[in-house]
Amino acid sequence: MAEGFFTVEHTALENFARQLLEGAGVARQRAALVASNLIFGNLRGVDSHGMQLLPYYVEQLSSGLIDGAQDGAVLREGGATMLYNASNGLGAVTSAICCDHAIRLANEHGVAFVVARDANHFGAAAYWGRRISAEGLIGFAFCNASPIVPPFQAKEPRLGTNPICMSVPGAPETSWLLDMATTTVAANRIFKAYHNKQAEIPPGWAMDKEGRPTTSTNEAFHGLIMPLGGYKGTGLAVMVEILCAILGGGAMSTEVGGLRVKDRPMGVSHSFLAIDPARFVGAAEFAGRMDKLTDYLHSAAPGSGFDEVLIAGEPEARFEKQRRESGVPLGPGEWQRLIDWAAKFGVAPPAYT
Amino acid sequence: MAEGFFTVEHTALENFARQLLEGAGVARQRAALVASNLIFGNLRGVDSHGMQLLPYYVEQLSSGLIDGAQDGAVLREGGATMLYNASNGLGAVTSAICCDHAIRLANEHGVAFVVARDANHFGAAAYWGRRISAEGLIGFAFCNASPIVPPFQAKEPRLGTNPICMSVPGAPETSWLLDMATTTVAANRIFKAYHNKQAEIPPGWAMDKEGRPTTSTNEAFHGLIMPLGGYKGTGLAVMVEILCAILGGGAMSTEVGGLRVKDRPMGVSHSFLAIDPARFVGAAEFAGRMDKLTDYLHSAAPGSGFDEVLIAGEPEARFEKQRRESGVPLGPGEWQRLIDWAAKFGVAPPAYT
Repeated sequence: MAEGFFTVEHTALENFARQLLEGAGVARQRAALVASNLIFGNLRGVDSHGMQLLPYYVEQLSSGLIDGAQDGAVLREGGATMLYNASNGLGAVTSAICCDHAIRLANEHGVAFVVARDANHFGAAAYWGRRISAEGLIGFAFCNASPIVPPFQAKEPRLGTNPICMSVPGAPETSWLLDMATTTVAANRIFKAYHNKQAEIPPGWAMDKEGRPTTSTNEAFHGLIMPLGGYKGTGLAVMVEILCAILGGGAMSTEVGGLRVKDRPMGVSHSFLAIDPARFVGAAEFAGRMDKLTDYLHSAAPGSGFDEVLIAGEPEARFEKQRRESGVPLGPGEWQRLIDWAAKFGVAPPAYT
Repeated sequence: MAEGFFTVEHTALENFARQLLEGAGVARQRAALVASNLIFGNLRGVDSHGMQLLPYYVEQLSSGLIDGAQDGAVLREGGATMLYNASNGLGAVTSAICCDHAIRLANEHGVAFVVARDANHFGAAAYWGRRISAEGLIGFAFCNASPIVPPFQAKEPRLGTNPICMSVPGAPETSWLLDMATTTVAANRIFKAYHNKQAEIPPGWAMDKEGRPTTSTNEAFHGLIMPLGGYKGTGLAVMVEILCAILGGGAMSTEVGGLRVKDRPMGVSHSFLAIDPARFVGAAEFAGRMDKLTDYLHSAAPGSGFDEVLIAGEPEARFEKQRRESGVPLGPGEWQRLIDWAAKFGVAPPAYT
């Protein structure tokens, strides 16, 4: 592991996360669910959606911006749809409930769509897509997010990184699993380049503060994140905004709070779509056809500079295999923040190497 | 209009299209539907999905690769889902039937998902999203397509431009409407740059034949189209492939034919998702919230070099307003191909300016 990192065995880290959440007043079962959601991010190499989030959750729980005792409530259910009031509960808690409703409704109707409003950060969207696909259904998860991205042609933010996630049934180690923000890259790739004193970033990642495309890391750091491919990324982000906030009746665009916003709850909305392959080609044939599609993709000759072609989810599955074996590395700043909360709550930190 | 163009009043052009299709043996009602679908593309400035397609349709009808007399048949219906066999009928004919099933099922269940296999080109996906949203539902249309795009990191094509379309209820002139290929740009933008002897194209559009990103128009012309933003575009294209071909049981990846493929039917699959806002915030509130979101987006200060911020569908709505007034321009090559078929079928060409 890199110099200065604290590497913790993943189950020990998950216990630690649960204990910290319990320290913040969250009941054990809810705390365990949030911990599982966070460790999932770390195991798959998506550290921005792992333990890094926990100090924010704890702060928001402590200040009352998240209500750790809430499960939310069904606002309306009809046919294969449901509107859910997450009532400012923990994102993982209300998302688990909503996914389970989506699974139940899709088993009954073949397809289901559930929207939750007044919700909080749900960690990695892939966790929810996977929760649905583990039941033999195609699972989609969407979420609107804090407004940090300008629409195409603009220089003022109006949209979040609004992720799109789709997961298909199959072995977690090998199944195709897409979880992508609708920006070209996550904001923290730009922060990382800046902190590593990299002078240039690739074209398409960012704009300067006037909305001009830039490859200067410095301009990008003080500028704006680029919607994926320009107007298409904006279109996809708006698609997610509609499926979550507009349909659900929650905060939209600049109304949305954030992890670092102290004066109001986050107020994001989530949506979950589940589709049963058994209603179409059938479950077994669907699985066989997914394998065949994966083979087609893997069989494409790699381009110059690459030695393999990967499917969505494959890089993360490799991370997971490795980190399940050798532990989850946490950066020194991240570790310190966790240790500070542990001291406050009287929780013993886990062993590390 | 540009030099050398033939500009035709849009209803005259639509009649002409219908007559040519009737000349190719298509019954009047089916021919009228296909003509309406094509003119929709032209009116909105998406000429690649307008009358340019008609000569291909006529060739494929004449050679038996499209069965112009087919309506297809329901393979299975259950709950809010349907699997449809398009039986190689005209894409517009079977898509209209499938959209109407999606509308019926979504009215009953709040959400519906319909997949059609063994289908043909359905023109602009926006036409189908709009057909669903005209009934007060959110409409999505997806289609897999001829394999011309390499997966990320590859240099051999495995996927189509696999479009994603979403349309919301509201006035067609002002409503948000997304219809995008999952490549950075359509292939014909690269062809156009090449034919206009433009030396350079923007980064992110294309790769050379070895799969290296290039801004050389010449290399791009002989090379490969770039998935939108790299691995994310590939992920979205695979998402569409799964929702269409994998679920539907039709041709996938390199099995798919094409408009210029003479030895087998196109064999694409379509899918249609419909969601009823009345089951969530309610139809009226949904409309009000869409207006509010549109206002948020429009209110963002334009970036340097731009004087306004547009929402998805707005550029096309402007084209449509202008072309409804002043006609549809057809290029000389396109015009000649249509005229040649008109002569063969004894159809009088429309007046032009």
